Amino acid sequence: MSAPEPALSPLAPPGFLDALARGIGQVMLQDNRWAGLLFLAGVAFNSIPLGLAVVLGTAVSTGTALALGADRTAVRCGLFGFNGALTALALLVFLEPAALTWALIALAAATSTVLMAAMQRLLQPWNLAVLTAPFVFTAWCGLLATGRLGRLEPTLLLPTATLPDAARVEGVVGAGTVLEGLLNGVAQIFFQQGAVAGLLFCAGLALASRQALVAALAGSAIGLATGWIGGAAEPALRAGLYGFNPALTAIALWTVFLRLDLAGALYGALACVASANLFAALSAGLAPFGLPALTFPFVAATWVFLLAAPKLASLRPRA
Amino acid sequence: MSAPEPALSPLAPPGFLDALARGIGQVMLQDNRWAGLLFLAGVAFNSIPLGLAVVLGTAVSTGTALALGADRTAVRCGLFGFNGALTALALLVFLEPAALTWALIALAAATSTVLMAAMQRLLQPWNLAVLTAPFVFTAWCGLLATGRLGRLEPTLLLPTATLPDAARVEGVVGAGTVLEGLLNGVAQIFFQQGAVAGLLFCAGLALASRQALVAALAGSAIGLATGWIGGAAEPALRAGLYGFNPALTAIALWTVFLRLDLAGALYGALACVASANLFAALSAGLAPFGLPALTFPFVAATWVFLLAAPKLASLRPRA
Amino acid sequence: MSAPEPALSPLAPPGFLDALARGIGQVMLQDNRWAGLLFLAGVAFNSIPLGLAVVLGTAVSTGTALALGADRTAVRCGLFGFNGALTALALLVFLEPAALTWALIALAAATSTVLMAAMQRLLQPWNLAVLTAPFVFTAWCGLLATGRLGRLEPTLLLPTATLPDAARVEGVVGAGTVLEGLLNGVAQIFFQQGAVAGLLFCAGLALASRQALVAALAGSAIGLATGWIGGAAEPALRAGLYGFNPALTAIALWTVFLRLDLAGALYGALACVASANLFAALSAGLAPFGLPALTFPFVAATWVFLLAAPKLASLRPRA
Repeated sequence: MSAPEPALSPLAPPGFLDALARGIGQVMLQDNRWAGLLFLAGVAFNSIPLGLAVVLGTAVSTGTALALGADRTAVRCGLFGFNGALTALALLVFLEPAALTWALIALAAATSTVLMAAMQRLLQPWNLAVLTAPFVFTAWCGLLATGRLGRLEPTLLLPTATLPDAARVEGVVGAGTVLEGLLNGVAQIFFQQGAVAGLLFCAGLALASRQALVAALAGSAIGLATGWIGGAAEPALRAGLYGFNPALTAIALWTVFLRLDLAGALYGALACVASANLFAALSAGLAPFGLPALTFPFVAATWVFLLAAPKLASLRPRA
Repeated sequence: MSAPEPALSPLAPPGFLDALARGIGQVMLQDNRWAGLLFLAGVAFNSIPLGLAVVLGTAVSTGTALALGADRTAVRCGLFGFNGALTALALLVFLEPAALTWALIALAAATSTVLMAAMQRLLQPWNLAVLTAPFVFTAWCGLLATGRLGRLEPTLLLPTATLPDAARVEGVVGAGTVLEGLLNGVAQIFFQQGAVAGLLFCAGLALASRQALVAALAGSAIGLATGWIGGAAEPALRAGLYGFNPALTAIALWTVFLRLDLAGALYGALACVASANLFAALSAGLAPFGLPALTFPFVAATWVFLLAAPKLASLRPRA
Repeated sequence: MSAPEPALSPLAPPGFLDALARGIGQVMLQDNRWAGLLFLAGVAFNSIPLGLAVVLGTAVSTGTALALGADRTAVRCGLFGFNGALTALALLVFLEPAALTWALIALAAATSTVLMAAMQRLLQPWNLAVLTAPFVFTAWCGLLATGRLGRLEPTLLLPTATLPDAARVEGVVGAGTVLEGLLNGVAQIFFQQGAVAGLLFCAGLALASRQALVAALAGSAIGLATGWIGGAAEPALRAGLYGFNPALTAIALWTVFLRLDLAGALYGALACVASANLFAALSAGLAPFGLPALTFPFVAATWVFLLAAPKLASLRPRA
C-alpha cells in the first residue's frame, strides 16, 4: 500500500506479471513482488492446484480491473489482485475441484474486483481501506450457494450447517421449465406465477418502455441459465425464483442507471449472474430463520455494481 | 424514476390516484401510471385479496408520505408507493388473512415510508437509489415476528425455520400483567425486574426530567400494548420485555431529539410500536444463535426515525 | 446529552466520579449525576455484584477514554460510560461470575470505548447519535464467544441456541501447541499449515519489511494467548486458527496505518485481542450457516480501531 515503482503499462506482459506478484504480496499488505512470489511458493509447496488457484484468481481479478478501467496505479500495486487470490483459495479449499468449481473461481474473482471498487467508494467518506472484505463476502456467498446449487459440492473441510444441507440436483430441466421459468421470472416480481399474470406484467412494461421489457426477459433468462448450470432444483427454476431478481437488476442497470454500450451490457450481465448466485446464497443463508430472500439479491447486486461504476472508467452513467 | 409530469397537487384525489398507479409501476422502476394499472391487473387476475393488498399498501405508504411532509415530486412519481405495495403483498402471501394481518399491513406500509426516507438520507453520500430495500427489511421483520407474536399465523408458503417455531399465545394477560409489565419495562433497561428497582429508576428519571419519566412510562405502555395485541407470551409481557426498548425510544425521540408537537408525538408513537415489533422480530431472529435482543430494537428504530426526520417537513428537531 | 456543567478536570477524582455517575445516568439519556446514582441504587438493591459490575464497567470505559485522549467534554458528560455500564451488566447477567468473567468485563468495557469513538465517526455524515449500539455489539460478541471459548460459562438466563452449544475445554496446550500454533498463525493467512509454508511466508514478509514479520508473529502470539486463556480447543490453537486474524491486524495497525509509539503499541495489542475474540464469536455465530469466519475478524477489528483513531488524541497516523 506504499508508493508504486515507476509504472510500466500494466497491460504489457512484464507489468501485468509484476502486478500479479504484488497482488499476492498484498494478501499480507506488502506491495512487494518478491514477497508475493515467496507467498505463492509457500502455497504451491503444500498443493500445486491451490497454487494454480492463487495465480488464476489474481490474474482474473487483476485482468477484470484493467478491462473495466480501474485506476492504473492501484492495479499496478496489486490492490485488485489480493481479494481474487484469497477468493480462489477459499473456494478451492472448501469445494470439490470440478470444472464448475474452476468456472466459479473465475467468476468470483471477477466479481471481487467489482466489489473492491464498490467498497472503495463506500468507505471513501471515512478514508478507510477496504482490506480483505470483498474476499470474505464473495467467498461466503459462493459457499452458502452450495445449499441451493446441487452441482457445487462442498469438501469435508467446510463446517457442517444445521440448515441448509448441501443441495442435490432435483428434477430434469426441459423446454417447459425454460418457457414457464422465463415468464414466471417476471411474474415473481409481484409474487405471482402463471401465463396471464406474466403477460399482463410484460404488457405493462412494454407500454412504459420496450427496452425495459427486453431487459426484464433477458435478466430472467440469465438468472434461469445461472441456476440451471449450477444445478438448482427444477421446480424453483420453473417457478421463476432464479429469474425475478436478475430481471429487476437488468431493468435497473441496463435501462435506468448505466449507458448500454458494450461495456455496460457485459457489466449488467455480470450483475445479473451475481444476482442469481446471491439469490441461491441468501435463500440458503436465511433457511435457519425461515425467511424468503425477497428482492434483496437485486438490491444488493444493484447497489454494488452502481457503487463501483464511477471507479471504472469503461462504464458511463445514463445521461 | 424519470422526470414527473406537470404536477397536480398529490393531495387532490386525481393526483393521489395517479401517484398510486405510478407507485405500483415503480415496483419495476417505471414511472408510468398505465404500467402500474396493468401490473395491478396481473395481480388481481390471480387473487382479488392480493390486488386489494397492493392498493391498500400503496395508498397507506403514499398517504403517510404526504401526511409527514415528504417531497411532493417524489410522492407524485410513486417513489413512496412501491415499497408499501410490495410489503403488503409479502405479508398477505406469507401470513393468514386475519383482521390483525390487515392491520399489520397498514402499519408496515406506513413504516416502509419512514424507512424509505431514512434510507434516502443514508445513501445520499453515494447518490445511490434506495430501490426495494425498505420493503425487504420491513417484510423480514413482520415475518420474523411470527416467531414471537402468537396471533400472527404464517401460511404454508413461508419456509419452515429450524428455530424459532411460530409462537402460540401463552398465558392470560390480566391487571397484574399490565401493572408489573409497565414498571418492569423501565427496570429492564438495566436488566432488572421488581417494584423497588423500577421505582428507583423512575425516581432517577423524575429528578433529571419529568418529561423523560412520562415518556419512559408511555413508551413502556405502548410496547406492552403492541405485544399484547400481537399475542406475545404473558410472562414476557409481565417481565417488561416488550417495554424497555420502546421506553428508551420514547425518551430519545420525544424528549431529546424531536420537537413534541402533534406530528412529533404521533411519529414517536409509531417509532415505539416499531420498536416493540422489532423486539419480537429480533428476539426470534437471534434464536439460532442463542442471543438476547438487548437494546438493539431501540437503537435501530431510533436511528431510522431520526434519519428520516429531516426529509419529512412535518417534523422539527428540538431547538 | 445536554450541555455539561463547568468542567473540572475529568482526571481529578471528584471530576472522574461525577463522570461515572453521569455515565450511569446516560443509560437513559440523562446527563445528571443524581439520576445515575439512583439508577445504580436500583441495580444494587437487586444485586450487589451487578451493582459492582456497573461501577467497574463505567470506570473502565471512562478511564480508557481518558487514557486514549477522547474529547474531555464528552467524557465529562458520561458519554463514554454508559456503554461500559451496560456491557458489564449484560456479561454478568449471562455469564457465570468467575475471575475470567470479571477480566472479560474489563476488556469488553475498554473495547466498548473504542467502538464508541469508531461509531461516532461512522455516523458523523448523518449527525446521528451512537446510542447504545457499542454495548449491543460488544455484548453479543462476548456471549457468542461462549460457543468457542470453554472457560466462559453461560448462565441459565442465556437463551439456548440450536447451534453452537457452549464449548468445553478440549485437549491440553503444551510447548508443541505453542510452537506450531505460532507459525501456523501466519500460514493460515493463506489457508495453509506446516513449517515449510509458514517459513516461506515469514521469509516473504522479512524481505518486504522486517517490522511486518515481527508484527505478524507478535499478533499470532497474542491471538494464541487469548484463545488459550479463554479455553479454546487445543487443535484449533495448534492449527493457528486463533492467530491469523490478529497477525493481519498487527501488520495493519502497527506497520501500515498507525505510528508505533507506546499508545499505538498498546492500542494495536488491544485490537489483536479483540480480533481473536471476534474470531471465536464469529466462528460460533456462523455455525448455523456452516461457514468459516475467514478474515472478517481482522477486517472488522481493523476498521473499528482505524475509525476510532482520529477521535483519540493519543494515537497518531503513520506519516
